[in-house]
Amino acid sequence: MKKTILKQYAQLLVEMGVNIQKGQELMVFASIKQEALVKEIAVAAYKKGAAKVSVEWGSDALTKVHYRYQSVKQLGKVEEWEKAKLQHRVDVVPARIYIADEDPDGMKGVNQKKVAKARMMSYPIIKPYIDQLENKEQWCIAGAASPEWAKKVFPGMSKSKAVEKLWEAILETSRMGEDPVRNWKEHNADLRRRCDYLNSLNLKSLHYEASNGTDFTVGLIDEARFLGGSELTLGSNIEFNPNIPSEEVFTSPMKGEAEGIVYASMPLSYEGELIENFSVRFESGKAVEVKAEKGEELLKQMISMDETAAYLGEAALIPYDSPIRKTGILFYNTLYDENASCHLALGMGFTNVIKDYEKYTQKELQDMGVNDSMIHVDFMIGTRDMNITGTDKDGKKIKIFENGNWAF
Amino acid sequence: MKKTILKQYAQLLVEMGVNIQKGQELMVFASIKQEALVKEIAVAAYKKGAAKVSVEWGSDALTKVHYRYQSVKQLGKVEEWEKAKLQHRVDVVPARIYIADEDPDGMKGVNQKKVAKARMMSYPIIKPYIDQLENKEQWCIAGAASPEWAKKVFPGMSKSKAVEKLWEAILETSRMGEDPVRNWKEHNADLRRRCDYLNSLNLKSLHYEASNGTDFTVGLIDEARFLGGSELTLGSNIEFNPNIPSEEVFTSPMKGEAEGIVYASMPLSYEGELIENFSVRFESGKAVEVKAEKGEELLKQMISMDETAAYLGEAALIPYDSPIRKTGILFYNTLYDENASCHLALGMGFTNVIKDYEKYTQKELQDMGVNDSMIHVDFMIGTRDMNITGTDKDGKKIKIFENGNWAF
Repeated sequence: MKKTILKQYAQLLVEMGVNIQKGQELMVFASIKQEALVKEIAVAAYKKGAAKVSVEWGSDALTKVHYRYQSVKQLGKVEEWEKAKLQHRVDVVPARIYIADEDPDGMKGVNQKKVAKARMMSYPIIKPYIDQLENKEQWCIAGAASPEWAKKVFPGMSKSKAVEKLWEAILETSRMGEDPVRNWKEHNADLRRRCDYLNSLNLKSLHYEASNGTDFTVGLIDEARFLGGSELTLGSNIEFNPNIPSEEVFTSPMKGEAEGIVYASMPLSYEGELIENFSVRFESGKAVEVKAEKGEELLKQMISMDETAAYLGEAALIPYDSPIRKTGILFYNTLYDENASCHLALGMGFTNVIKDYEKYTQKELQDMGVNDSMIHVDFMIGTRDMNITGTDKDGKKIKIFENGNWAF
Repeated sequence: MKKTILKQYAQLLVEMGVNIQKGQELMVFASIKQEALVKEIAVAAYKKGAAKVSVEWGSDALTKVHYRYQSVKQLGKVEEWEKAKLQHRVDVVPARIYIADEDPDGMKGVNQKKVAKARMMSYPIIKPYIDQLENKEQWCIAGAASPEWAKKVFPGMSKSKAVEKLWEAILETSRMGEDPVRNWKEHNADLRRRCDYLNSLNLKSLHYEASNGTDFTVGLIDEARFLGGSELTLGSNIEFNPNIPSEEVFTSPMKGEAEGIVYASMPLSYEGELIENFSVRFESGKAVEVKAEKGEELLKQMISMDETAAYLGEAALIPYDSPIRKTGILFYNTLYDENASCHLALGMGFTNVIKDYEKYTQKELQDMGVNDSMIHVDFMIGTRDMNITGTDKDGKKIKIFENGNWAF
C-alpha cells in the first residue's frame, strides 16, 4: 500500500477515531504485522500533541503457544504489576486504538474451555479498573489487512493480491475518499438524524421477521436512546468514533425481554474460531437454546461465560444496502460484518444509551435494564427481506425496516 | 531457513543458553521481525517446564519515533507500574533471552544527546532493582538475521540471499553443527582450561602491543579470575551461557590502572550508530582522549554517561584465529565482532570475576577494583600481529598472545 494513504488512514484513526488531545497518552493494540501502520499512528498522534504513545504488540502464534502450554492458573493470573498498569490507565485515562487484523481461523485447535476458564479467573480482578474507566476513554477499533486474514476473505488470490484487495475494501468502507474527515462528519450527521427520529417514537419493543425463520421480539428500555456514529466521553466531552467503519444505529435492550428465534445471516468469528449457520432461541430475555452447524460447543460455552452472557446487550439496525454489505465481501471480522447487517449482541450492554447516564451509578443503570457481562459478542441477523416493526407505548405499530432497509 | 534448524537453534538457546528450570519464568526480548524464532523458543521453554514465557517485542521504527517526539522528561520517566514490573522480576528471578538482530544503522539521525539524558534520568530508578538481581539470573544474548542487518553485512546481495547468508553465519558461529549441546560442552571445557592456566599465573598486569600503534597496559585485580564460557547463577548454581556465540576469556581489570593508547580494529555499533577508526588514550585508568574518523561526538558522549563510564570494565582475550574472525565477516554487531577479536569494555565490570564474590557486598567488590557504571560497551582492539605480555607479582614477564593468538 502507498505510504501516503497509510498516513491518511492513520490520521483518520488518530483525529476522527480517538480525537487525541494535547498532552494525552495513546495506547495502541496491534499485531506485530502492523508495524508500518502503527508507526504512522504514532507519528500522527505525536503531531497532534500526544505526550506518549505506547504499543501493546500481539502475536496470535505466541498466544496459541501460551494457551497450549500454560496452566489455567497461570493463564488466569493477574500479576501485581499488571494491576499497577491498569491503575495507571485509570489515573491517566489514555486514548486507545485497537487494530483488528486477525486471521479468522487463527485460534483453530485451541482448547477454548481452558481459555474461558482462565478468563473467568482474571475477569473479576480486572473488572473494578474497567468499571472506573466506563465511558471516560476515547477508543477506536479499526482494521488493517494481514496476509492470513486476506487469504481467508479472498482465498482464490495470491497473498499479495489478497492483501491489496483487503486494504482497498478497508479503506473504502472506512470512507477514506477525498476528504475522510469531512466524509465522517457528514456520515455522523446522517446517523444522528436516524437516531433522533427513532428516539422521537418512544418505542417499547421491536419485532423482527425474515423468510429464514427469524421471528423475534425484543423489549426496549424507556430511558434508553438509539445512538450511532461518534460519541462523547463522560466528563470531558471529547467526541470520538469508537468504530471505523460504523454504519449502525443501536441501543441496549431491556434485560429479560426477548422472545422467539433468530437465525444468523453470517458466520461469527469468536475467539479465533468460526461459528456457522446457527440460531438462538430466547425466552424471557435469555438464550435458552442454540444450534449451529459448526462451532455449536463454542457457542454454548460463550453464553455460559457468566450468568448474564445469555442475555442481550445490544440491538443494532443497519440497512441491507449499507456500503459494507454492498461490497459483497464477507469479512469474517465482526467490525466489518456487523456493519453490513442488523445484529444483536449477547452479553454486556452500553450504559451510555441511557439518557443522562452520567447522573446514575453503574448499578442504577443496570437496574434500569442494561445487561452487564464479561462478554459482548455481536452476531449478524439482517437479511434482504427482513422486516422490523416497532411498537410504541400506546401499542401503535410503526414500520422501522422494510425488505432489509430503513422504512423511513 | 528450515523450521527444523530454527527449532534446534531455539532449543540451544533455551537449554544451553539460559538452561531454563522447571516452573521458572522466561522473558524474551526480541524485535517484532523474529516471531518465528521466538515462537520456537517459547515452545522449547514450555517443553522444559517453564511456567510462563513472556515476550517484550521491540520495534526500532517505533523507538525512533518515540525518541524524536517525546520530551526528555517523558522518555526518562519510569512509571509506578514499570517499577512494579521490575519488582516482579526481582521476586521471581526469570531467565532472560535477548535476540540481537538490529540494523547497525537503525538509529541514524536520532538525537543521541536527548536519549542519553533520558537514560541518565531513568537509570538511578532502575538500578536498585538490577542490583538485587546481580549474578542471580540466567541470561543469554543470541543473534537472529533481520533483512536490514543482513543487507549491511552483505550489501551486494539481494535481501533474501543476504538473510540466508547471515543465518548461515549465525548458526555456524553458534556451533550448531551435528550435536550443538555436545559442541558447547566441549567448547566450554576448552575455555575453562585456558582460564585455569591464566589464573595459575597470578598476573598483575597485561601489556598490549600492535603495529597499528596500540601500546597499552592494564592492571589486574589480585582477587579476580579469568572467566569464559558458561557461568553459574549466584545461590542457585544453575549453569548458563550468557553469550551464544562466545569465544572470549575475560576479566574485569583494576579500576584506575590503565595507561597508554589503544586503536580500534573494527567499527563499533553503539546506540544504533557506527563509530569508526577510533582510538582511546588512558591515563590512570581513565579514557582521557578519544579520536574517531566517524562518530567522535557519540564516543565522547558515551564516556560521559556517568563519572565511571570512562573507566574500563572488561579486558577480553580472543585469538585472531577465532572461528568468528575466520568467517571473514564483519558483523557490525558486538555479540559477534567482540568474539572475533581481543576487546576492552568501557563502563561496568563483572563482580563475579572476583573469587568467592558471593561472600562480599556489591560495594566491597567495587572497592576491590571492579568498575560500576550505567554503560558497558565493548570495543575491539585485536589484530593479526597483537602481542600481549603478562607481568606476575614477582615482575616476571609471561607471553600470553603472540602474533594475535594464544602463546600457550
